[in-house]
Amino acid sequence: MQSFPLEGITVLDFGQVYNGPYCGFLLAQAGARVIKVESLIGETLRGRGMAASSAYPFASLNANKESITLNIKSAQAQQLIKDLAAQVDVVLENFAPGTMARYGIGADVLRAINPALIYASSTGYGNAPGPYRDFLGMDFTLQAMAGVMSITGEEGGPPLKTAAAFADFLAGTHLYAGIVSALFGREKTGEGATVDISMQDCVVPTLSTALGSYYVAGEQQPRAGNRHPGKALAPYNVYPAADGYVAIICIREGHWRNLCTAMDNTEARSDPRFATMADRSANMDDVDELVGSWTQGRSRAEILQITQQHGVICSPVNDLADVLDDPHLAARGTLEKRRHAAFGEISQFRTPLRFTDIEPMALRDAPALGEATDTVLQELLGLDEDTLAALHRAEAI
Amino acid sequence: MQSFPLEGITVLDFGQVYNGPYCGFLLAQAGARVIKVESLIGETLRGRGMAASSAYPFASLNANKESITLNIKSAQAQQLIKDLAAQVDVVLENFAPGTMARYGIGADVLRAINPALIYASSTGYGNAPGPYRDFLGMDFTLQAMAGVMSITGEEGGPPLKTAAAFADFLAGTHLYAGIVSALFGREKTGEGATVDISMQDCVVPTLSTALGSYYVAGEQQPRAGNRHPGKALAPYNVYPAADGYVAIICIREGHWRNLCTAMDNTEARSDPRFATMADRSANMDDVDELVGSWTQGRSRAEILQITQQHGVICSPVNDLADVLDDPHLAARGTLEKRRHAAFGEISQFRTPLRFTDIEPMALRDAPALGEATDTVLQELLGLDEDTLAALHRAEAI
Repeated sequence: MQSFPLEGITVLDFGQVYNGPYCGFLLAQAGARVIKVESLIGETLRGRGMAASSAYPFASLNANKESITLNIKSAQAQQLIKDLAAQVDVVLENFAPGTMARYGIGADVLRAINPALIYASSTGYGNAPGPYRDFLGMDFTLQAMAGVMSITGEEGGPPLKTAAAFADFLAGTHLYAGIVSALFGREKTGEGATVDISMQDCVVPTLSTALGSYYVAGEQQPRAGNRHPGKALAPYNVYPAADGYVAIICIREGHWRNLCTAMDNTEARSDPRFATMADRSANMDDVDELVGSWTQGRSRAEILQITQQHGVICSPVNDLADVLDDPHLAARGTLEKRRHAAFGEISQFRTPLRFTDIEPMALRDAPALGEATDTVLQELLGLDEDTLAALHRAEAI
Repeated sequence: MQSFPLEGITVLDFGQVYNGPYCGFLLAQAGARVIKVESLIGETLRGRGMAASSAYPFASLNANKESITLNIKSAQAQQLIKDLAAQVDVVLENFAPGTMARYGIGADVLRAINPALIYASSTGYGNAPGPYRDFLGMDFTLQAMAGVMSITGEEGGPPLKTAAAFADFLAGTHLYAGIVSALFGREKTGEGATVDISMQDCVVPTLSTALGSYYVAGEQQPRAGNRHPGKALAPYNVYPAADGYVAIICIREGHWRNLCTAMDNTEARSDPRFATMADRSANMDDVDELVGSWTQGRSRAEILQITQQHGVICSPVNDLADVLDDPHLAARGTLEKRRHAAFGEISQFRTPLRFTDIEPMALRDAPALGEATDTVLQELLGLDEDTLAALHRAEAI
């Protein structure tokens, strides 16, 4: 592959917050031209009514995009969107269910104008008929609805969310996957498609381990903290280190033997309590005490070095500063240090979609609100300056 | 779109456990022919040395595939893989780093044989140079390395994993996305590609909210349980219900007003402690007490009904049985009830990649180990029965 795979593709990205914008980010970093369409005051994450902490995700997820502003409640802007849909390959959005249709610019209307168009949306529960279709959804409530919270948390404690917004990002990745699948299918047929991604659908497969334990036991197992959901693997836990914590997991007998060697503990290797995975699982507290007593006097770096030398699956529990300065993420070109107006130097991520033949695309700053409105409408629709001025006056753009 | 987008594409799927097999599952359900390649004793998840609980994920992730067995340590099988690589569009694998190359069937070798081939791999840390490239990685340790554990957990408690294996599934989805992007790019150039997905890369963007709070405060914020990582939104928590818990989040002032109406609490709406998002965040304990006192006497279903009627973002905290019987997942055709040899009736998921013009593909049972070995090698390589018998005797297949 000598060039970015989506070169020549043009996208109208109505995304907001994480799900849609991450999809647009992946598209842009894969070579597509991504035109971010915002309301006249900017999308939700740009700042209005949101915490200052939204500035970092906004900057990251909207790199390599152009920004135009359109008031989709205005009939003039709705006509512009129809005209733009005739010129582009993809329209993507993650509004509340039915928003685009309510303004007369839904999938059916736009695909009738441009039969080759890929119209792609992602909502909490998808657009197919069903009792939750019109429910509002956020990452936080999807983690609740899709069962993730029920299996996460301390032993004996309440259900707990994960603080990583993975439902949003998983849905955004599926949205990208659906769009590119449809683009590939279109090569043969010339026909567009409507992509319908439900965040709930995307989260369900991540329950696989817990569902396996559920079906074996015939009922849900108690929350297990950092241990295996079915208490069927040991060692499998987070252990104290001198400067924090480490995560260690042994999924095969060989891993356990390797860990005993790494700990320089021949007694443990011949201890009948620890002979097989089933024995170790039955004596999990003893296993955890043994491993923890070895880790607690050592630094995370030392533990990582020793375990990796011995073929044990281990990682330090890194905090955010560790991740931002991670030498591997820097070496791979995944994180790029850049200037941000409010924060000074920040680390921004590039696309995880990597091809060995080409360098990952350099990041460009997220666009200022509407900075490309006039140029895009001139270029794609041939609007002249008088028309643009009238549209501005009417607050359609 | 009148047909599945990947019809006509053939894939050799060397995936094991979740990451690679989920990618293969998405490919199969998008219309590709997916030939699962296993060792003579089957891949890790098929059962050897793993807990009984692996049967459910194995059945789910390998639906709609064919299975062939090849001993990749055998020179004869290595030649067969080279011959097969000349006939297929995609090879995917998620072995430990460098495994395929060690057996002489790495990306460079196979792409030299078939310049149109897409060779796609996913490992914990990717194949590009870097200090962690050769580290073993599992979902559990990637959650540790990529910072997710450090931000998840109870206030004052230790770092905690999420029990949903989201790092694996997020990487598998990116692997699919990379493959289909390369297939699309190949339409123009005829040239294949090497896709290099790092689980670590895929997880980093999910930290966006926490990184936003980090940059605002200049340091990592304490773990926040079910609250907002930056304590900048309220209500935002899991609240007790009469029969479990519910998750409620208000991200705009309107949501709070709606919630006050839903709770029939006009006093709260005019209470100066709760006037703005900043006020509510500063008085988070009071907000949570107020909301919790309303939820705790009501069932999850009643709370869901009232909040949805009033435009409040809310979800019950569902357990696994709730998810498996979820009426919306059934209505969308996302979960299909099927017979499983060991468990009786189970609910299996179909692909989240959905297109409104076509029904999602019906599930076919995961294949028995090696059931298609002979037929695939006959069909794709023209091997005769004597040759196949000799390969079986030599334990190459």
